[in-house]
Amino acid sequence: MSWLETSIMARKGLAKGKPGKAYSITEESQGQYHYVYGPYAKPVLKVDPGSVISAETHDAFEGKIKYETDKPSEILNFPFLNPQNGPIYVNGAEKGDTLAVYIKSIVPRGPQPVGTTCLIREFGGLVATGDTALLNPPLPERVKKVEVTLEGGVKWSDKLTLPYQPFIGTIGTSPEIEAITSLQPDYYGGNMDLPDVGVDAVIYLPVNAPGALLYLGDCHAIQGDGELCGVALEHPTVTTVQVDLIKKWTFKWPRLENEKFFMTIGSSRPMEDAARIAYRELIRWMAADFGFEELDAYMLLTQCGRMRLGNMVDPKYTLGASILKSYLA
Amino acid sequence: MSWLETSIMARKGLAKGKPGKAYSITEESQGQYHYVYGPYAKPVLKVDPGSVISAETHDAFEGKIKYETDKPSEILNFPFLNPQNGPIYVNGAEKGDTLAVYIKSIVPRGPQPVGTTCLIREFGGLVATGDTALLNPPLPERVKKVEVTLEGGVKWSDKLTLPYQPFIGTIGTSPEIEAITSLQPDYYGGNMDLPDVGVDAVIYLPVNAPGALLYLGDCHAIQGDGELCGVALEHPTVTTVQVDLIKKWTFKWPRLENEKFFMTIGSSRPMEDAARIAYRELIRWMAADFGFEELDAYMLLTQCGRMRLGNMVDPKYTLGASILKSYLA
Amino acid sequence: MSWLETSIMARKGLAKGKPGKAYSITEESQGQYHYVYGPYAKPVLKVDPGSVISAETHDAFEGKIKYETDKPSEILNFPFLNPQNGPIYVNGAEKGDTLAVYIKSIVPRGPQPVGTTCLIREFGGLVATGDTALLNPPLPERVKKVEVTLEGGVKWSDKLTLPYQPFIGTIGTSPEIEAITSLQPDYYGGNMDLPDVGVDAVIYLPVNAPGALLYLGDCHAIQGDGELCGVALEHPTVTTVQVDLIKKWTFKWPRLENEKFFMTIGSSRPMEDAARIAYRELIRWMAADFGFEELDAYMLLTQCGRMRLGNMVDPKYTLGASILKSYLA
Amino acid sequence: MSWLETSIMARKGLAKGKPGKAYSITEESQGQYHYVYGPYAKPVLKVDPGSVISAETHDAFEGKIKYETDKPSEILNFPFLNPQNGPIYVNGAEKGDTLAVYIKSIVPRGPQPVGTTCLIREFGGLVATGDTALLNPPLPERVKKVEVTLEGGVKWSDKLTLPYQPFIGTIGTSPEIEAITSLQPDYYGGNMDLPDVGVDAVIYLPVNAPGALLYLGDCHAIQGDGELCGVALEHPTVTTVQVDLIKKWTFKWPRLENEKFFMTIGSSRPMEDAARIAYRELIRWMAADFGFEELDAYMLLTQCGRMRLGNMVDPKYTLGASILKSYLA
Repeated sequence: MSWLETSIMARKGLAKGKPGKAYSITEESQGQYHYVYGPYAKPVLKVDPGSVISAETHDAFEGKIKYETDKPSEILNFPFLNPQNGPIYVNGAEKGDTLAVYIKSIVPRGPQPVGTTCLIREFGGLVATGDTALLNPPLPERVKKVEVTLEGGVKWSDKLTLPYQPFIGTIGTSPEIEAITSLQPDYYGGNMDLPDVGVDAVIYLPVNAPGALLYLGDCHAIQGDGELCGVALEHPTVTTVQVDLIKKWTFKWPRLENEKFFMTIGSSRPMEDAARIAYRELIRWMAADFGFEELDAYMLLTQCGRMRLGNMVDPKYTLGASILKSYLA
Repeated sequence: MSWLETSIMARKGLAKGKPGKAYSITEESQGQYHYVYGPYAKPVLKVDPGSVISAETHDAFEGKIKYETDKPSEILNFPFLNPQNGPIYVNGAEKGDTLAVYIKSIVPRGPQPVGTTCLIREFGGLVATGDTALLNPPLPERVKKVEVTLEGGVKWSDKLTLPYQPFIGTIGTSPEIEAITSLQPDYYGGNMDLPDVGVDAVIYLPVNAPGALLYLGDCHAIQGDGELCGVALEHPTVTTVQVDLIKKWTFKWPRLENEKFFMTIGSSRPMEDAARIAYRELIRWMAADFGFEELDAYMLLTQCGRMRLGNMVDPKYTLGASILKSYLA
Repeated sequence: MSWLETSIMARKGLAKGKPGKAYSITEESQGQYHYVYGPYAKPVLKVDPGSVISAETHDAFEGKIKYETDKPSEILNFPFLNPQNGPIYVNGAEKGDTLAVYIKSIVPRGPQPVGTTCLIREFGGLVATGDTALLNPPLPERVKKVEVTLEGGVKWSDKLTLPYQPFIGTIGTSPEIEAITSLQPDYYGGNMDLPDVGVDAVIYLPVNAPGALLYLGDCHAIQGDGELCGVALEHPTVTTVQVDLIKKWTFKWPRLENEKFFMTIGSSRPMEDAARIAYRELIRWMAADFGFEELDAYMLLTQCGRMRLGNMVDPKYTLGASILKSYLA
Repeated sequence: MSWLETSIMARKGLAKGKPGKAYSITEESQGQYHYVYGPYAKPVLKVDPGSVISAETHDAFEGKIKYETDKPSEILNFPFLNPQNGPIYVNGAEKGDTLAVYIKSIVPRGPQPVGTTCLIREFGGLVATGDTALLNPPLPERVKKVEVTLEGGVKWSDKLTLPYQPFIGTIGTSPEIEAITSLQPDYYGGNMDLPDVGVDAVIYLPVNAPGALLYLGDCHAIQGDGELCGVALEHPTVTTVQVDLIKKWTFKWPRLENEKFFMTIGSSRPMEDAARIAYRELIRWMAADFGFEELDAYMLLTQCGRMRLGNMVDPKYTLGASILKSYLA
């Protein structure tokens, strides 16, 4: 039996966590990819809870960075970055509900070398940026193209092959009335760049607009904590997810469940605020659903909470606070 | 001769800083007020550079907090807060241009007591918030209604009358494809809550979308640095501005000019990033338009730059860096 | 009548704010200058409340940067920077008391050009530093020497003379058991770099160690908000202060009084924490000594509080929150 | 063969990572414990590189919190907190060298329940503090006493036993002239509260003062990432370390090596600055000792760097950036 059968998605979802009808979104059927998370775009699909959707995702640069001699500053055109599939309208979803998204598989697609990372002006965790606005000269631009396969992993160099550990960098629902750049993570998900949002995990996303309006894209073949230079191993994929709908389960920030742990995800600046959000949400979850008094949860997490750094480069930083399921039994 | 005649608006604006046709936006003609800064709303007016527009602004609560016994938590409905007039489409404005807005007058309107301040749960500079997410119990809610008149000032209490020093709390242009809550300040202006944006000042706003799409609202009768509890002396007004258009003057963050100084405005978190943005933009301005070498400007501002704290309560904090015009002569 | 006669120092000080015996600390009598604020140094003077002390202060570089061709990186030897006069032991001062220091005069001394500013590697508000640790290349080093006189002001260039507006950059009492670099501002004062600490102001410093152990140095001829590049117009001076002692007036952070306003001073990172400290201390002061209920003070400061940015370059940032005395009457 | 035999300590240390003479520091021989990291205390031991020292450490409260009915606010007396053993003078250590400390064992001592955690006013990751200075009411105080044994683990409750995963919360060398509270982590180590500083790890500490002057204390039986409420499972121990000395290996921030990875440790505020320090130091290490070009290291860590959150509660936050040894081969 898979852990999934005892997941919150299986226990509370309208489709009981069972796969339903299958859909696919190709580059052609997607047509225009999106650069904001908002309610103003026409849905590419309308589906019922339980539906399984395979989407052809682009990399964060829509495939425009092709060669190691390319200059990102000449190719990229802000704000038309980080193209997203969707929005997918989930029938029955209303503000106050939760959309559950189980990530079934992520597979690289397209001609090799399919992976891209690069150094971009005024972007990254260890350089002056538009916010940390300084006078120092910039680093040189640099592009690295990498072969990535499901079986062979990430061929970083002749000497070093990294494992293929794919996840969805950007996934979320629509805000109610805002339309926010897909470069930003926030209360609805978005560009969290958190490696735990990988295969065999369920992410729970608050529904803010009718139909939830799920967007996703920006899959990474592997990424370190913080996505240090701002550009993970970006690659186009076929990503398959199964959606479910939990009525009247209401919370503000994304949550995640996998075989081992429960996680809450906060995004903010400065970084301590993202950490505070993540841990406060986890305490609230433990109090609401696992029988803890809040201060007891606070003291227990002091001893055994885990904190994962997603990104330290996006408009808001993202961290995920978690606790082992075995400690909640 | 007014200083305005030698302003950048007068020297570079298509209308030479001269007033043109007059318009008025009443509550009725505005119809639906707006809660996001974005390109998805239909313009309420289309005007030429030089136009003078009087707008009936609401207070930040759309007038819904009427009595000192009201509970904000029962009345306010996020994200439908901070209603904005507009958008005003300025003919000829394109991405890369600058919209100049001269603030001619701000006058209170409506039945007394017309001013409102209050304490709102999880909002304010000295309380735990949704971002600085803590476990401490909240403060009590509290509402204070205050009589405000142009002549008599702000009757804070029997013993204390504060001066009427009105300014526009929220003003800006539309982002290119984003639609962002009117509670947030950012690169296009928005909810900066900076007292220098007052009568007899020109604010220069970057144009990101066709027609610039000017929004404004949220006038304050007086406000201290930081807007400490998050709610200044909010009041409905008739606010009159004159717009002008400067073609191909391109910069990222709002700028301001008045009789005495030039100012650049940054909004970010943490607060030091807002300060860095403001000062870096001022250095760039001094280098581009006033003949300074960048490092000389950096060293001079070290001796005579001024920094005004706008807000320390909104989704991004706002600060304005300035230098006296007399030091640039 | 001077405002000083109604100051808190005059009303509560053991010496009633009256000048007592006069002392002077010359370079020779000082001997070893100090680079930490702590209780481990031998006092250079022991004085009674009311004493007036004139001290020959060094500039922040102990006079070692002499020419515009000097390279700070070759001359400066961390942590032996920002030399301090003192400590001055004030008889009767105990933990829980407050030391009042009235600044009587600051006069430049030494051969012209007596003023120095410069760009230092990994230091400053708009560069990558040891804390905001980035990979960008550094700025070039640069030294500027400036003539400074009491009458003629600060000769910045042939075209620009800035006013002489001197203040004490670094002043404070000793921590109880810590000894902290004189480059850092904190709860005991230290390197606040706040221009309000100027002539005709009283700074109130918490006493943490027996005798208070007053240190001071680092006078600036003029400085903008934030001390942007990290080096104001540094200059050696004769600085004259009058000390007084207020028994059992206990608070945590420095306070300041001048003719116009009361100010509380916070130092922390990120910058919003310094602002929070400053405003919370001001509210506590208004509640303890001026008859305010705390939440009323919070709401009033929202309308009329002022915030001055001292430094945005030191190990902690410093801000001062103030309210006009006329609003407290 | 132990990994230790190929460690940097073994390869570069004067004692080649071999154990030498054994010493023990008892409560009695320690006498006065210390509350600052500084050069002003008399060494409790002088030892050669290779020496093995067992120290009886106190818990962070010096054993004063004995019962669950105790009130920390009535018992604890700031700044006399977090008592430290030492300083240990290591013969031959000079500024510019590195002290290597291999952690051999940590064993609980004293009468059960030997573990303590508690909620302290204005301290902790999810409450208003002295720095994040707010007006919200405080949480209640609370003390929890827990049985901790080497074999039986941490008896959190009748239903939950946590593993015993001890580490040294506070360890470091002396600053050159500063004496800083043992509550603070910084460039010399100190109160990092980083769980990786556990048994079978080597921590490398920069030497700033003659003899290095090693302090240690504050052992935790287990701790979650961030030490959320500020008080891990504090307990008195016998902690045994082996010191070695690496001449002329100079860097600014602590480093760590264990069987699996190399780590660099940064402490600062806001949290992103601690993360930046940690990653920049790791890049510099990879460049200096492992043959990487800096920008290549930056891009590689983007894909496979790991970031551990030590504390989010102390005067500076601590994070450790690491890379697997297998990626450096």
